[in-house]
Amino acid sequence: MIFEKITIIGFGLIGSSLARAIRHYNLAKTIIAADQNQSVCDTVNELSLADKATTDIAGSVKGADLVIISVPVGAYTQVIEAIKVNLKEGALVTDTGSVKQSVIQKISSHMPGHAVFVPGHPIAGTEYSGPENGFKELFIDRWTILTPLPDTPVQELEKITKLWEGCGATVEIMSPEHHDLTLAITSHLPHLIAYTIVGTATELEGDLKRDVINLSASGFRDFTRIAASDPVMWRDVFVNNRDSVLEVLSRFSEDLSEMQRAIRKGDAAFLEEKFTKTRAIRREIIDAGQHVEETAKAKLSSEAG
Amino acid sequence: MIFEKITIIGFGLIGSSLARAIRHYNLAKTIIAADQNQSVCDTVNELSLADKATTDIAGSVKGADLVIISVPVGAYTQVIEAIKVNLKEGALVTDTGSVKQSVIQKISSHMPGHAVFVPGHPIAGTEYSGPENGFKELFIDRWTILTPLPDTPVQELEKITKLWEGCGATVEIMSPEHHDLTLAITSHLPHLIAYTIVGTATELEGDLKRDVINLSASGFRDFTRIAASDPVMWRDVFVNNRDSVLEVLSRFSEDLSEMQRAIRKGDAAFLEEKFTKTRAIRREIIDAGQHVEETAKAKLSSEAG
Repeated sequence: MIFEKITIIGFGLIGSSLARAIRHYNLAKTIIAADQNQSVCDTVNELSLADKATTDIAGSVKGADLVIISVPVGAYTQVIEAIKVNLKEGALVTDTGSVKQSVIQKISSHMPGHAVFVPGHPIAGTEYSGPENGFKELFIDRWTILTPLPDTPVQELEKITKLWEGCGATVEIMSPEHHDLTLAITSHLPHLIAYTIVGTATELEGDLKRDVINLSASGFRDFTRIAASDPVMWRDVFVNNRDSVLEVLSRFSEDLSEMQRAIRKGDAAFLEEKFTKTRAIRREIIDAGQHVEETAKAKLSSEAG
Repeated sequence: MIFEKITIIGFGLIGSSLARAIRHYNLAKTIIAADQNQSVCDTVNELSLADKATTDIAGSVKGADLVIISVPVGAYTQVIEAIKVNLKEGALVTDTGSVKQSVIQKISSHMPGHAVFVPGHPIAGTEYSGPENGFKELFIDRWTILTPLPDTPVQELEKITKLWEGCGATVEIMSPEHHDLTLAITSHLPHLIAYTIVGTATELEGDLKRDVINLSASGFRDFTRIAASDPVMWRDVFVNNRDSVLEVLSRFSEDLSEMQRAIRKGDAAFLEEKFTKTRAIRREIIDAGQHVEETAKAKLSSEAG
């Protein structure tokens, strides 16, 4: 038991999965679900996902020793303004936003001196949204990145680390800048591209569009899964990680122009060389993934033993 | 039993999967595997994937009533030049290439008058290549597109249709032009983009590259799988479907520039609208996929009954 009372604000896929994991692994005594949508609160009650569900965001944090903000990044300012007066002495605040520099800016300017903010980001999700689609295993063998501020006390960082490890995640600490640039490449740019190519397909003429849908091959089908992700969450990611996304997008566009030129010129050797190099990265990612799983398993068995 | 003797030239993932399915569903008496690599022939013998394996491409088609060309598109001219004198009277030739207009051009100019070419393309594959990675279920519930020529006799088209249906595929007939443009969108462009973005990542500076590999989130990880596909096959696709790929690439680039502008300007409403539209396409593709599976199942049960 790490916390007495945890309030989770924003009870979608991530918030509800966290609540399930926190309860299953017994990491807190009480879980409060706060969400501005009454329908979300109704689902929480129907599925018994928390001890209490409320649309009263401001009131929901009273007495909580941990508050987890899990709303789209565009709603952070509204949330922190609502809750700041009710945060108890020594309360910890963390979040699950996909962007860290702009989140820190939004939250820090409103944080009262008696509470501590530890920014976090679980690298986990699916293309489904809403509390009914969460599941307690979502964070197992996945990374959670924490980007502590220079004045974050180490013991508070450790509490948040334990929370995520308790949910099955492996925690990595890095600077907010490094986080935003890394995620721009591994997550934001792929999503932007998937949204774009699927959007290109939606604007095709009748016959062609029908066959694109009917015959969608592996590449496109994978892209449509990514492009089915929550539009509001992703809108906020791009607005809030603008500089890093534009930076990696410009590198990508240069590389794509080079490919385009090679195709136009029929430069088979260039294409084969490029296509061969990328196989190596896949190998490294599979190896790195196995390393994470093995580390997590070793940890679990050493704790059990 | 549709054919007496089938020769499959190019015994990689697709060729070897076809051989497995043809044998399992008893669609031919004899299967000959022809591949220029002795190591491939050795694997065929070790795994007993065909009645005979040979590196003698020219000789392999003697007496065959069906020849299936399953090499990378860039090697077609070499293959047809080698086999044309040995094709028996009334032999059928088909292929599995991802591009159809340029394939028809390469093959038709060399086809002897006593044989018939029916161009085909199974929409199936994985990121693994080589005969050891094939499996007999690869075509089940997948599309195979046939793009017959104006003078193709209907009974020959029907034989090839039966072959693919016998392997579990659903056959769709369309023009080569329509095929090449549709596939440019659903398959070739997604592969080009995946290769490009993974290539962009390979050129990152040390720290950033390490974290991109370690933390690869769903979007990027999916792209690396696609970008691990056979480099030679894909090199040939882009060189041989140049016009269609450049056409869809230019539409995509326009749309990506529009996204880029919206991010730069912080146009949240534009982004949300675009991201919401693409969810609908995902829904349509899932429905279309279910339709294919249901049609295939209905056919199987009506044949069984």
